[in-house]
Amino acid sequence: MENNGFCNDKYGNESSDDDLVDVSASAQDLLEDLPYDEQYYGQGYSTGGRGQNGTAKLLDLLDDGLHGLGTYDDFNTIDWVREKSKDRDRHREISKKKRQSVLDLLLSVSDAFSGWLLMLLIGLMSGALAGGIDIATHWLTDLKEGICMNGFWFNHEHCCWDSKETTFQEREKCPNWKSWAELTVGVNEGASAYVVNYLMYVSWALLFSYLAVVIVRAFAPYACGSGIPEIKTILSGFIIRGYLGKWTLVIKTITLVLAVSSGLSLGKEGPLVHVACCCGNILCHLFTKYRKNEAKRREVLSAASAVGVSVAFGAPIGGVLFSLEEVSYYFPLKTMWRSFFAALVAAFTLRSINPFGNSQLVLFYVEFHNPWHFLELFPFVLLGIFGGLWGAFFIRANMAWCRWRKNTRLGQYPVLEVVLVALATALLAFPNDYTRMSGSQLISELFNDCSLLDSSQLCDYTTQVQGGAMNGNLSHGANFSNGLSERAAGPGVYTAIWQLALAILFKTLTTVVTFGMKVPSGLFIPSMAVGAIAGRLLGIGMEQLAFYHHDWSIFSGCCITPGLYAMLGAAACLGGVTRMTVSLVVIMFELTGGLEYIVPLMAATMTSKWVADALGREGIYEAHIRLNGYPFLEPKEEFEHKTLAMDVMRPRQSDPPLSVLTQSGMSVDQVEAIIADTSYSGFPIVVSQESPRLVGFVLRRDLVISIDNARRCQEGIVGASQVLFTEQTSNPVGPPPLSLRSIIDLSPLAITDHTPIDITVDIFRKLGLRQCLVTQNGRLLGIITKKDILKHMAQMTNRDPESILFN
Amino acid sequence: MENNGFCNDKYGNESSDDDLVDVSASAQDLLEDLPYDEQYYGQGYSTGGRGQNGTAKLLDLLDDGLHGLGTYDDFNTIDWVREKSKDRDRHREISKKKRQSVLDLLLSVSDAFSGWLLMLLIGLMSGALAGGIDIATHWLTDLKEGICMNGFWFNHEHCCWDSKETTFQEREKCPNWKSWAELTVGVNEGASAYVVNYLMYVSWALLFSYLAVVIVRAFAPYACGSGIPEIKTILSGFIIRGYLGKWTLVIKTITLVLAVSSGLSLGKEGPLVHVACCCGNILCHLFTKYRKNEAKRREVLSAASAVGVSVAFGAPIGGVLFSLEEVSYYFPLKTMWRSFFAALVAAFTLRSINPFGNSQLVLFYVEFHNPWHFLELFPFVLLGIFGGLWGAFFIRANMAWCRWRKNTRLGQYPVLEVVLVALATALLAFPNDYTRMSGSQLISELFNDCSLLDSSQLCDYTTQVQGGAMNGNLSHGANFSNGLSERAAGPGVYTAIWQLALAILFKTLTTVVTFGMKVPSGLFIPSMAVGAIAGRLLGIGMEQLAFYHHDWSIFSGCCITPGLYAMLGAAACLGGVTRMTVSLVVIMFELTGGLEYIVPLMAATMTSKWVADALGREGIYEAHIRLNGYPFLEPKEEFEHKTLAMDVMRPRQSDPPLSVLTQSGMSVDQVEAIIADTSYSGFPIVVSQESPRLVGFVLRRDLVISIDNARRCQEGIVGASQVLFTEQTSNPVGPPPLSLRSIIDLSPLAITDHTPIDITVDIFRKLGLRQCLVTQNGRLLGIITKKDILKHMAQMTNRDPESILFN
Repeated sequence: MENNGFCNDKYGNESSDDDLVDVSASAQDLLEDLPYDEQYYGQGYSTGGRGQNGTAKLLDLLDDGLHGLGTYDDFNTIDWVREKSKDRDRHREISKKKRQSVLDLLLSVSDAFSGWLLMLLIGLMSGALAGGIDIATHWLTDLKEGICMNGFWFNHEHCCWDSKETTFQEREKCPNWKSWAELTVGVNEGASAYVVNYLMYVSWALLFSYLAVVIVRAFAPYACGSGIPEIKTILSGFIIRGYLGKWTLVIKTITLVLAVSSGLSLGKEGPLVHVACCCGNILCHLFTKYRKNEAKRREVLSAASAVGVSVAFGAPIGGVLFSLEEVSYYFPLKTMWRSFFAALVAAFTLRSINPFGNSQLVLFYVEFHNPWHFLELFPFVLLGIFGGLWGAFFIRANMAWCRWRKNTRLGQYPVLEVVLVALATALLAFPNDYTRMSGSQLISELFNDCSLLDSSQLCDYTTQVQGGAMNGNLSHGANFSNGLSERAAGPGVYTAIWQLALAILFKTLTTVVTFGMKVPSGLFIPSMAVGAIAGRLLGIGMEQLAFYHHDWSIFSGCCITPGLYAMLGAAACLGGVTRMTVSLVVIMFELTGGLEYIVPLMAATMTSKWVADALGREGIYEAHIRLNGYPFLEPKEEFEHKTLAMDVMRPRQSDPPLSVLTQSGMSVDQVEAIIADTSYSGFPIVVSQESPRLVGFVLRRDLVISIDNARRCQEGIVGASQVLFTEQTSNPVGPPPLSLRSIIDLSPLAITDHTPIDITVDIFRKLGLRQCLVTQNGRLLGIITKKDILKHMAQMTNRDPESILFN
Repeated sequence: MENNGFCNDKYGNESSDDDLVDVSASAQDLLEDLPYDEQYYGQGYSTGGRGQNGTAKLLDLLDDGLHGLGTYDDFNTIDWVREKSKDRDRHREISKKKRQSVLDLLLSVSDAFSGWLLMLLIGLMSGALAGGIDIATHWLTDLKEGICMNGFWFNHEHCCWDSKETTFQEREKCPNWKSWAELTVGVNEGASAYVVNYLMYVSWALLFSYLAVVIVRAFAPYACGSGIPEIKTILSGFIIRGYLGKWTLVIKTITLVLAVSSGLSLGKEGPLVHVACCCGNILCHLFTKYRKNEAKRREVLSAASAVGVSVAFGAPIGGVLFSLEEVSYYFPLKTMWRSFFAALVAAFTLRSINPFGNSQLVLFYVEFHNPWHFLELFPFVLLGIFGGLWGAFFIRANMAWCRWRKNTRLGQYPVLEVVLVALATALLAFPNDYTRMSGSQLISELFNDCSLLDSSQLCDYTTQVQGGAMNGNLSHGANFSNGLSERAAGPGVYTAIWQLALAILFKTLTTVVTFGMKVPSGLFIPSMAVGAIAGRLLGIGMEQLAFYHHDWSIFSGCCITPGLYAMLGAAACLGGVTRMTVSLVVIMFELTGGLEYIVPLMAATMTSKWVADALGREGIYEAHIRLNGYPFLEPKEEFEHKTLAMDVMRPRQSDPPLSVLTQSGMSVDQVEAIIADTSYSGFPIVVSQESPRLVGFVLRRDLVISIDNARRCQEGIVGASQVLFTEQTSNPVGPPPLSLRSIIDLSPLAITDHTPIDITVDIFRKLGLRQCLVTQNGRLLGIITKKDILKHMAQMTNRDPESILFN
């Protein structure tokens, strides 16, 4: 009987290659009958069996298209050691074969290059998506103000490019672009026009935000938020099925555009990381190597998060460092090099798509011309302190708000919440020029170093010609013979100061309530905007100080650049909120392109991080991870208490003893009883109950499936059959035994009960363990899982240990 | 008796804080008598004792200024787990105290900032040293050609700056600078002048190289070579005492200047990493935190190696990535941020020292103005292939030469070797312009994009004016109205091509024999020079092709930049030799400052790495590590064979059984006999010989010292006293027992005999273990040390396992 041949095959016996075709055919038939598929045996326990090659090969043929093979349950933690070992086995298999034939050599080469191909695809796809999001966002944002008569699909800038007016001033009032007031009332001046524009602005904002939240709620709840806390958790080895799926991708892309366009105080940079990771995850399915291995897939996701930042800011190196510093858990050098490649591909794809003719790769291209003076480090550090304080305040306020949302009835009406916040935002934002424009426009304007042709309010300077007699508003295209650095603020600048001061309050408040709502929402742009406003204000102040007191030594270089202050402020606030360091400086460096400004940047971000850390250790992403109870083992955490492994392990002193299996002497019924009585996901195997010396570890699902299958396929297996985990296979008396040695992990990691908890955590983190056994003088004493450690850590910091939701 | 009180204190009994002053005073007296100092007990085995705080505190007072505390023997491997645990204990102590008084709070703050202060000092010191080396090298290099009449301490450029002639042409023949021929024969033209100059050039070269090798040999043998292989090994946890000491620093700095000035084919970039690491190591002595902890010190050294590259190229970000990618073993994010800070400080220190008025931060500042065409990727990839082939060839040739040197009598005459190579180099280099100039000058010239005023031979183009009728040599300051991109090569370029073709052969040959000699020698500049020549040649070829075939689609952009080709060639060759990836691209990116050229760079380095890897897995540094037999556990190595831990562990089947101690029942004499019979550096402790269940691990030196000390200080300890490693302290019969529980490590890491070797290596690498015990079903079976793994790996790749020299 063919079936029998297949059943035997599972228990680690060699099958000859000749049988492959027949057996796999029969297996295909089998699969339709069996609830638990044979695939569970194909994982090639690298630890146990040396003679499993036959089985592995056989099941390689089988497992394509089978669900569940080598996968974990949802909301579970992967075992990095096992996953990496699996991948090494696969690799070894391929390298061994490659000497056999040309085809195998080609397969081996294609295997080696599949990683690069995947990176290329991720770069192309993410770059294209980011480009699409960019275009759509620009269009919808402009739609709030008016419409293009040449075609409603043109945005303001694009619409006016086609018109024949080519100078700046004329382009501002290009005839093809009609504001809603012009279209309805016929004029664009006066109170009625203002009211019409105001109403249209608010209505569009409401519509976009309503659509965004409704679509998210209806189709992909995972699409909300920035996604970075969840991606950090996933990269650390947690499984959240569907979080990076195709539905999430589609819905997040659409709703991100809507949410950003609605004028809510949120950015698209964080969600772009989520979008890129979705791309990475989906494209992983094209390659068996990555589809079937959770550890390898996480390497790809690390690279994808680099791609996300790369397309968000146009900063490929910064993106790679962001992935390394902020989100990744396991980041080997190979991944770094590939991430860099993918990030570059994505950045260049985005640039080649960019329809606005701006050939700059970066989001906020700035070029400063003046060097900075050494004494300016003092205001730079002040900005750092502001950034740190603001960051710490923001995190506390946002956490308080999110906790309040979670614990009150507000949390039950997410749609209403979003619409109300959008309404308030739009109502308050419209009257102020600096809040009406989008966050990234605002930042661009603030970073900008006023050039001769700038018509912006912020560049409205009254030039003082040498001799000091002649004052005049010469801002528009005037002759700045005296240099740009000596200038008194004109009325426009004073107006701007007031508007900016109001904007900073408005932005802070709205961002606190917005981040965490059920729409895609990033934090980079809002916090950078707040910092940029603060920086610009300080910069203008310094500049005016310099103008009225040239003689002070600090102003001897006489070159205050308010735009530089804005940039430093932005970096400081972003640093205060996210606690990024190197990656932040490198991203900003890529924006400016000159090593010249790295020292100020470093001063600002360093101060900001120190100040913020002094007020609270956690960055916003860690805070959200904790709020949501994700099982994330923070590498930065330090232990003040000196606990030992035995204080953390289960069973505690009051608990019933540990459920273990013995390597021999247990019947199938007994094993099944233990499985039924407990809900542990695995069981240690010991020599005997009297001498609990550790033999191995078996996973619950493997055990269930093997017994189930043996009962069906293997003749003579009854409840009384002995279950053998030893190598000895013959059992002289009684029914034939069930040998399950091939499914156990013979190399479980064990530590002693006296191991300090900090070393234990190090071992967990560095090896990516799922669980670890605890022994005392060679006897098995208990077990520590990642959850036990997280609970212990929560307890130590006086938090509720039950807040860690998942296992 | 006070002595007695102190002796008791060592065995883990609590001492009250009140005793501290007295006891420490008595201890100070003691120290002069005892050969083995008490300090060995002060390491605070975080693993074992919960009641050791008293002891730890006591000994904290003692161990300042004592030699040997917490240190390892020379040529030994450190235990990262223990070192990090020690540091965490120290940190915990400080954070606990900081709430007690203002002084303690200040101490805690100063402790937190000492890392930053150290980084600042390293940056300043390395920057200053690099600046000094730069100045001295320029001066000595110019001294080979002539002397400044204003003062012999001026180099050529400096000398001529002071003169009143300010234009380029005039500066070339400034009157203050006299070549040796002018000084002696009176003229600088003609055969006799040439001969005089030639002779002087060769003599200086011989003198410098002779001095360099003699000084190295006499004072600091560790100062030779590039130092990067050794630093990699040290960072991985190996101890080479004196390698980073002050003598090495002084001698390396001096001889590096001499070696570079002698015109040998070597660079100063690699040795600068060594110099920076010496600075780091020396400055570590200022801070207890770093002086006493080998793991913390290695963090500082990682940062210092970033500083080295930062000052070598003026590329701080590239330096950090170099440290991360190429040399570091354990590189936490905190270190990365600090490295970045130190690298920046160093780069700016160097710049502010730089006396040549070149305000650029970077070594080879290049600015290209033309974009590249997509189809140019083809020649770029060609350069990558060349770089890979050249790198693989270079490594093989150099290894063969080094092995030949090692095995023949050549190795016994290092001074003669250096002088002969210097003679040959100088004799061959002088006649060719491109080999006579220093490596970095050559690279600068090759990277240079010919501008209008360039008088270099490489920029000697015959411009073809539109219409094509008028041909003329207009190179010197001529009117390039037709753009720089359309130009035919003039006779100068053709001469240069021949000279460069000879130079590439010459450089390759001399570098192969030079790298590995007993003088400080870096590899970056020579390999970049070879690549730059190849690139420039290809670039000129492409340019001429473009000139004669404008109509080909590849030339539609018509903007071939030969300097860009040179840069790519340099990157490709350097990549082929060192196998750097991200850091190489980032260093080059920092040189050019534009993201525009990253794609070509990436194409060239990627190809180069692939080609070189296909021909041989090892980079030059790994090859040298292997040649010297350093115990370095390569992270990139892969295992084709599927061995288990039991195949690697000792004792092998034929060996005598493992030497173990039992937790009770052994007398002092028995323990001493085991110590005398074996040379192992540590012993596992088991429950009993019959039931070898693992209890802990004790280090040989701890055991020796404790017993020695107990015999002297503790009353009643005789040869028959029982040694107890258990918690039970009372022994009813016989002499009083010797309890040594406090010195044993109760949390040794143990793996099972079935653990695959790849997982074992992962555990070793990630946790930084020194040894690991192997158990089978809870019984101790054997031990695996880092050396066992290295030997096994050598065996697997058919190398001589005995080539690993050190333990």
